[in-house]
Amino acid sequence: MKISLGSDNHSGVDPKILEAITLANVGYTHSYGDDDYTRRAIDKFKEVFGHDIDVYFVLTGTGANVLSLQNFLKPYEAVICAQSAHINVDECGAPEHFTGSKLISVETKQGKLSPELLEKAIFGVGDEHHVQPRIISLSQVTELGSVYTPAEIKAIVDFAHSRGLYVHLDGARLANAVVALGCSFADLTTHTGIDILSFGATKNGAMLAESIVCFRPDLSSGMKFLRKMGMQLYSKMRYSSVQWLAYLSDNLWYENAKNANDMAKYLYSKLAEIPEVKLTQPLGANALFALLPKEIIEPLREEYYFYTWDEFTGEIRLMCSFDTRKEDIDKFLGFLQKLIDSFKSH
Amino acid sequence: MKISLGSDNHSGVDPKILEAITLANVGYTHSYGDDDYTRRAIDKFKEVFGHDIDVYFVLTGTGANVLSLQNFLKPYEAVICAQSAHINVDECGAPEHFTGSKLISVETKQGKLSPELLEKAIFGVGDEHHVQPRIISLSQVTELGSVYTPAEIKAIVDFAHSRGLYVHLDGARLANAVVALGCSFADLTTHTGIDILSFGATKNGAMLAESIVCFRPDLSSGMKFLRKMGMQLYSKMRYSSVQWLAYLSDNLWYENAKNANDMAKYLYSKLAEIPEVKLTQPLGANALFALLPKEIIEPLREEYYFYTWDEFTGEIRLMCSFDTRKEDIDKFLGFLQKLIDSFKSH
Amino acid sequence: MKISLGSDNHSGVDPKILEAITLANVGYTHSYGDDDYTRRAIDKFKEVFGHDIDVYFVLTGTGANVLSLQNFLKPYEAVICAQSAHINVDECGAPEHFTGSKLISVETKQGKLSPELLEKAIFGVGDEHHVQPRIISLSQVTELGSVYTPAEIKAIVDFAHSRGLYVHLDGARLANAVVALGCSFADLTTHTGIDILSFGATKNGAMLAESIVCFRPDLSSGMKFLRKMGMQLYSKMRYSSVQWLAYLSDNLWYENAKNANDMAKYLYSKLAEIPEVKLTQPLGANALFALLPKEIIEPLREEYYFYTWDEFTGEIRLMCSFDTRKEDIDKFLGFLQKLIDSFKSH
Amino acid sequence: MKISLGSDNHSGVDPKILEAITLANVGYTHSYGDDDYTRRAIDKFKEVFGHDIDVYFVLTGTGANVLSLQNFLKPYEAVICAQSAHINVDECGAPEHFTGSKLISVETKQGKLSPELLEKAIFGVGDEHHVQPRIISLSQVTELGSVYTPAEIKAIVDFAHSRGLYVHLDGARLANAVVALGCSFADLTTHTGIDILSFGATKNGAMLAESIVCFRPDLSSGMKFLRKMGMQLYSKMRYSSVQWLAYLSDNLWYENAKNANDMAKYLYSKLAEIPEVKLTQPLGANALFALLPKEIIEPLREEYYFYTWDEFTGEIRLMCSFDTRKEDIDKFLGFLQKLIDSFKSH
Repeated sequence: MKISLGSDNHSGVDPKILEAITLANVGYTHSYGDDDYTRRAIDKFKEVFGHDIDVYFVLTGTGANVLSLQNFLKPYEAVICAQSAHINVDECGAPEHFTGSKLISVETKQGKLSPELLEKAIFGVGDEHHVQPRIISLSQVTELGSVYTPAEIKAIVDFAHSRGLYVHLDGARLANAVVALGCSFADLTTHTGIDILSFGATKNGAMLAESIVCFRPDLSSGMKFLRKMGMQLYSKMRYSSVQWLAYLSDNLWYENAKNANDMAKYLYSKLAEIPEVKLTQPLGANALFALLPKEIIEPLREEYYFYTWDEFTGEIRLMCSFDTRKEDIDKFLGFLQKLIDSFKSH
Repeated sequence: MKISLGSDNHSGVDPKILEAITLANVGYTHSYGDDDYTRRAIDKFKEVFGHDIDVYFVLTGTGANVLSLQNFLKPYEAVICAQSAHINVDECGAPEHFTGSKLISVETKQGKLSPELLEKAIFGVGDEHHVQPRIISLSQVTELGSVYTPAEIKAIVDFAHSRGLYVHLDGARLANAVVALGCSFADLTTHTGIDILSFGATKNGAMLAESIVCFRPDLSSGMKFLRKMGMQLYSKMRYSSVQWLAYLSDNLWYENAKNANDMAKYLYSKLAEIPEVKLTQPLGANALFALLPKEIIEPLREEYYFYTWDEFTGEIRLMCSFDTRKEDIDKFLGFLQKLIDSFKSH
Repeated sequence: MKISLGSDNHSGVDPKILEAITLANVGYTHSYGDDDYTRRAIDKFKEVFGHDIDVYFVLTGTGANVLSLQNFLKPYEAVICAQSAHINVDECGAPEHFTGSKLISVETKQGKLSPELLEKAIFGVGDEHHVQPRIISLSQVTELGSVYTPAEIKAIVDFAHSRGLYVHLDGARLANAVVALGCSFADLTTHTGIDILSFGATKNGAMLAESIVCFRPDLSSGMKFLRKMGMQLYSKMRYSSVQWLAYLSDNLWYENAKNANDMAKYLYSKLAEIPEVKLTQPLGANALFALLPKEIIEPLREEYYFYTWDEFTGEIRLMCSFDTRKEDIDKFLGFLQKLIDSFKSH
Repeated sequence: MKISLGSDNHSGVDPKILEAITLANVGYTHSYGDDDYTRRAIDKFKEVFGHDIDVYFVLTGTGANVLSLQNFLKPYEAVICAQSAHINVDECGAPEHFTGSKLISVETKQGKLSPELLEKAIFGVGDEHHVQPRIISLSQVTELGSVYTPAEIKAIVDFAHSRGLYVHLDGARLANAVVALGCSFADLTTHTGIDILSFGATKNGAMLAESIVCFRPDLSSGMKFLRKMGMQLYSKMRYSSVQWLAYLSDNLWYENAKNANDMAKYLYSKLAEIPEVKLTQPLGANALFALLPKEIIEPLREEYYFYTWDEFTGEIRLMCSFDTRKEDIDKFLGFLQKLIDSFKSH
């Protein structure tokens, strides 16, 4: 079996989550979320994020992002995000297509925005020739593997609110950030004042569990319609809701994210010792970025899944998952070293 | 446990499908459909529909419909559909929103289009003030429970192609139609010449299994991008693909649809004997429509799930599913009779 | 010179309007409406419609309609209109494309909606599977030449507001309706309580003068952005604004509409006397609809411009304009009679 | 009367163009472009650009740009443009809203793209997670006043075509570029191989004259529908067409652009002599960019129209027009000097 360091969604499903699905497979329930599993899952979210929220289960992370943005946008308003943001690079234009609004992208270091960077992206306010910035989108963990501290998020939120802007957090890997920072989900969200969150569990051991958490329930009355219009309303929703129930119980989310982060830390420390490998980004959570000798990339890819991140430089991304095993990393390192040695001897 | 005659998606998942999911939960695979489960599922589709197709697994029936339409539309082109069509009534405007195109709806009897009805909906061809009809969308089974014969579909397809139009089939309940007609999937699709199909299994025992089958692979090269842009690309796609593998194996789709249709036939025959019940549509597959004495609707709803279909007349819809049991229908009939008697005695 | 009874926009420009344009052609002004001509034109509108309005000059009637609707719509909300409405039939899908929202069309007699008809078009309120009706669009004069009385409009507005809906009036030929009814512009708009108006002068003697009048200025703060995003913002706006100044001065709008209506009345009365001509709609303002012997249509078209209104029945539309002359109508009638006689003698 | 150096659309209309409009104001014509004025204007375009073109008259420059892009785009395809491009900054998001597609913006020097810059903006080709670049949009004159040589445009076109991309030219000020380069319209368009052109005359003395010239008439069969759907179809089109007839006759376009460029050159040379004024961009055609002492900007603005170009640095833009007079520039320079002297003496 080929081992993947390609993405945390190359992994299967955590057995506890599969068990929860199996246990829910009994009897009839209402569809489209009007069922007890869903109600209990939402209660679980309220334990985690506080009670002043609205929760919507959706089907993809892209769906969560796009609907979160749409919730706050009029058609002539715009989103500000990092140039590296998933919404800007990896969603095939879904945000623009669905919202009909513009994304304003900002060059960053390591994928992180700041009030200083945002300041420069806001101009033409009130001028009819310009789109009007309305929402800022951050990724946590960022696409370059870095994490925002709670204070950094709060600074952005305070800046945004002072300008009449909202803040969206793309939390496809939020659990990994929480573990990396040693804080709570609420520390990064409820307590920073963000307005809306894409919260995903699929990448951390679930089968299909994505959600939108709205911290401004006074402003999300249209979300249920957006979810249907956005083709994100799951008929047999109980099978998604029970995944959330299991995920947020018994620290499952924590154990899974911790393993991914720990394995990444181990891999990072070992790669740092290999002179032919250049680590290109500081380690934030469970993703690593590196330049390898070009000649070994394809041979390595034959044995292990991973992605080329930058077509121009050849930079690759390695990612650890909830089920990544130390022994597989050791084997990977061994094979990598062998390729390097063989390459050097030619 | 409350029994549902509300919708076939109130049911759980067929145990054989859940088993297939469980068996797939091993090791790493590539994400987004680049995995062997998905490749094998596509091969299965080719056994069913012939080899000259393109297959795309998606997440919702609405997603399948919308992307199927988008595949053939330029922005100023239009869809013609029945006024009762799911795309026209039950998708919260997703087709118009995503495609940016117009739906032209046609009044029908029992939800079925015909060349005669379509003829009248096509005008202004070549005139820049009018949208240009480009694709006709049929539902099989229709939203009013009726079914098209293969010959009826073929007549529409021939008409459409003679006018330069394409034909889409919304096959959310295609298996029920196939069973009702005693034909094959290909008889309703490949052999009629339709251009694109939304094919769903979720309503017939799957957990989450929707797909698009394109019979014009020369025209579907953009579909993979549309799927991502339409927020319908499932990262851990193997968990959807294995459902299709199980569904199309060992006649599972047939057994399930047959039970739903048989139970509906039984329920229909019994209701026909009750003078206070007026059956409002002929029985096609697994859905029944009826008018009941208004006074008993809410008491009945307390014990059984079902839908009010028409807010104005009070017409209700009853639907049987792959797991509907005869004994539950008998209990339902008994309770209904009791309510009628009690109502009459007042 | 070929005479047109095809459309009031086959006419040229009223000399008084051209003179106003010529007089404005002096010196520099700010662009995009920040000029004194525009400010004075807006003041003129306030004299006509009252002071609690917002006014936006745009470039096309379709633009005025689409932006008016967009102003009140969230993406999952819908417009209700007559099946014959210009927005539904004659704008090449611009409303759906720009707003991303659905149009719900209602069959009517003579193009007129009523509370009774609207009542049946509103269902699924609060249900996430359905678009949510938000705005009703009426045409005055309708596309079939009929006019609403002030009381009829008010009844629709009251119905709409009681349901939380807004009302848009497509007033491309509002002056013709005002003249036909012997009332004022405000009687049909301000005093009926409509929320937004597309007000056009182009069809009544202007060169290019379309506008949006918003009677809910508290809700139109986004309109200036919509106008730019909708490609309706005219750089050298003074040349449109001065047309409005002339149009609303010295009763020009009245004289022009009166001539169009009077000529239509005359033509209608004469056609009513010809047994071979079947007038198919009652006369409302300046448009007539008729069935002629099929054999004479093309010979007639060689001498006079007019439109075939219904491809299936052959019904034609004849329209009078601000500059239609009685002598040209007499000539038309003579030629028509000659064709009929010649046709009958064969 | 306040003099404007703010924009070439602060000017009025060239008397020759107004005369052409007046002369066209006779009799009836078909609407929507089916008239002889429009046919003759299109013939004029063919004299200028060659016969293998399709021409569409529209109402705004933004409309011309957006429809030109839409003509070549599927929804998941993208536009590449300079960060400073009008379509990216000054059209309130109209391109994204109407096309539903993404704009990929590239940082440039002086607003000019090059094959080298474009190369880096093209990645993820064939990958469903990424939008697929399809069309490159250049501005000539650029928003920063620079001009592309014919060879520079041709190099970009050759690069684009080698990658399967199309090239759009935003020629709102194309005449100014032609005069600055001493070449012909065809040298910058037909002979470079661009695929589509937004060609405007409004900024160079017309009242309202914008157009789309498609050099791939085999690919523009949908444009007439897009024009209507894009709310850019003018009913009384003759009044726009005759402006083009006048504009392209008797060298009017040349004389007008030449005056604007000559006046800009004169102003530039004089400003270069004032030590307190920092010219920030090389002079290309008729626009100048400068930093002035901040204290004098508002007093200067009270007497002369001009724009602040950069909110952060205070950089202003000065623009000359077809009717800018040398004596007004001298007065402006005198007043500017007086303000500088007065400011220095404090």
